[in-house]
Amino acid sequence: MAIGVNALAFVAVAQVLALAGVVMVLVWCIYFMGGLAWEAPKKSLIFNIHPVLMLIGLVIIGGEAIMTFKALPLKKEVKKIIHMVLHAIALVLGIIGIYAAFKFHNEESIVNLYSLHSWLGMGIIVLYGIQWIYGFLIFLFPGGSSAVRSESLPWHVILGLILFSLAVGNAVMGFLEKLVFLETYGLAKFGAEAYLVNFTAVVTVLYGVFVVFSVLSQPVVVVEEESAYTAL
Amino acid sequence: MAIGVNALAFVAVAQVLALAGVVMVLVWCIYFMGGLAWEAPKKSLIFNIHPVLMLIGLVIIGGEAIMTFKALPLKKEVKKIIHMVLHAIALVLGIIGIYAAFKFHNEESIVNLYSLHSWLGMGIIVLYGIQWIYGFLIFLFPGGSSAVRSESLPWHVILGLILFSLAVGNAVMGFLEKLVFLETYGLAKFGAEAYLVNFTAVVTVLYGVFVVFSVLSQPVVVVEEESAYTAL
Repeated sequence: MAIGVNALAFVAVAQVLALAGVVMVLVWCIYFMGGLAWEAPKKSLIFNIHPVLMLIGLVIIGGEAIMTFKALPLKKEVKKIIHMVLHAIALVLGIIGIYAAFKFHNEESIVNLYSLHSWLGMGIIVLYGIQWIYGFLIFLFPGGSSAVRSESLPWHVILGLILFSLAVGNAVMGFLEKLVFLETYGLAKFGAEAYLVNFTAVVTVLYGVFVVFSVLSQPVVVVEEESAYTAL
Repeated sequence: MAIGVNALAFVAVAQVLALAGVVMVLVWCIYFMGGLAWEAPKKSLIFNIHPVLMLIGLVIIGGEAIMTFKALPLKKEVKKIIHMVLHAIALVLGIIGIYAAFKFHNEESIVNLYSLHSWLGMGIIVLYGIQWIYGFLIFLFPGGSSAVRSESLPWHVILGLILFSLAVGNAVMGFLEKLVFLETYGLAKFGAEAYLVNFTAVVTVLYGVFVVFSVLSQPVVVVEEESAYTAL
């Protein structure tokens, strides 16, 4: 099921939303929440690394990796390597971001892995890793037989989009969870920070929707007919 | 992009997950949270209507409506009516469920519409209504020209799946939000109720994933070749 629309518009809007999301999460974590630090007496600065890396890494760079095939006027083999490298960066940033959350919990003596957000997050990062390894082995090196590749491709695309959607959903849930904590400790429900966090989450959802739309629309420039996503 | 797998397995698993979800949300709201009531001195019983109707209505019955085209061995026109009726039920239950949340807030003097969950929820229910009306007018009565129908179908399916995914994500976010409130008031983070709520949310996510998979797989029985989802 594809939409008979050029992906360019969706990709362009996604870039604007990505930029907005990056700026908003940085303003929130640096200006409102006091900044980022790996070691600090004020432990909340360690936590602040978590939303920044999860949004910029797993969600935004992950989304850019997904859009590679539709957005770039390059040969399939080149796009494949860009796709793989961007997903690797997303995965590594995601793992460091999750580690920051554990580090904050441990140094603040907060229990780990009790919340739904953490459960889904662990599931997503593990599946993301498996998906990356499977993709690398089958589509890049050493590469499966052409039968295995063509059988695997729709699963790779669909599972990838589902994982990406779950990552977007879990990021949004993380924003909500943190905001509920902050509001419990007195943050104004209709104040500037609450609006900033909520709108960052809304921008995140819209970015996710535009990434999905770009995958379902027509490639910007078809260099080779058999481009991985052209079949959509 | 479709998977060369019969939808039957996905639909069957989705039914098991739907049943599990219904039982779990009822056990939570009735056994753990004290029951459901439209009028009650204990206002939390009014709130309890909200998760029950949103999960059973918007998410589960909405998902069943989506699976109709893949799951039922009936003529297209009959499936279309079942699809439309199920979505109407989902929409009505969703609206009543949202009303229950407002009613609880108003009677407890809690402000409305400050949370991300409420913002996304309002957006989703409005788009759901628009999607239903558009579908009814174009595909059922009076019906658009065949050009408009064939141009609209992929948008209807894709927007519908995105809306359904957002509904699933927002339901999961609602479970998390309520649980954070309860834990702030002393509920054990690793107690029976917390596990029940988190696993209900996990079951909800899995149900959503299986509904999406069923749409992307092959129809169980193709009665007519031009069945709405066959083209996927």
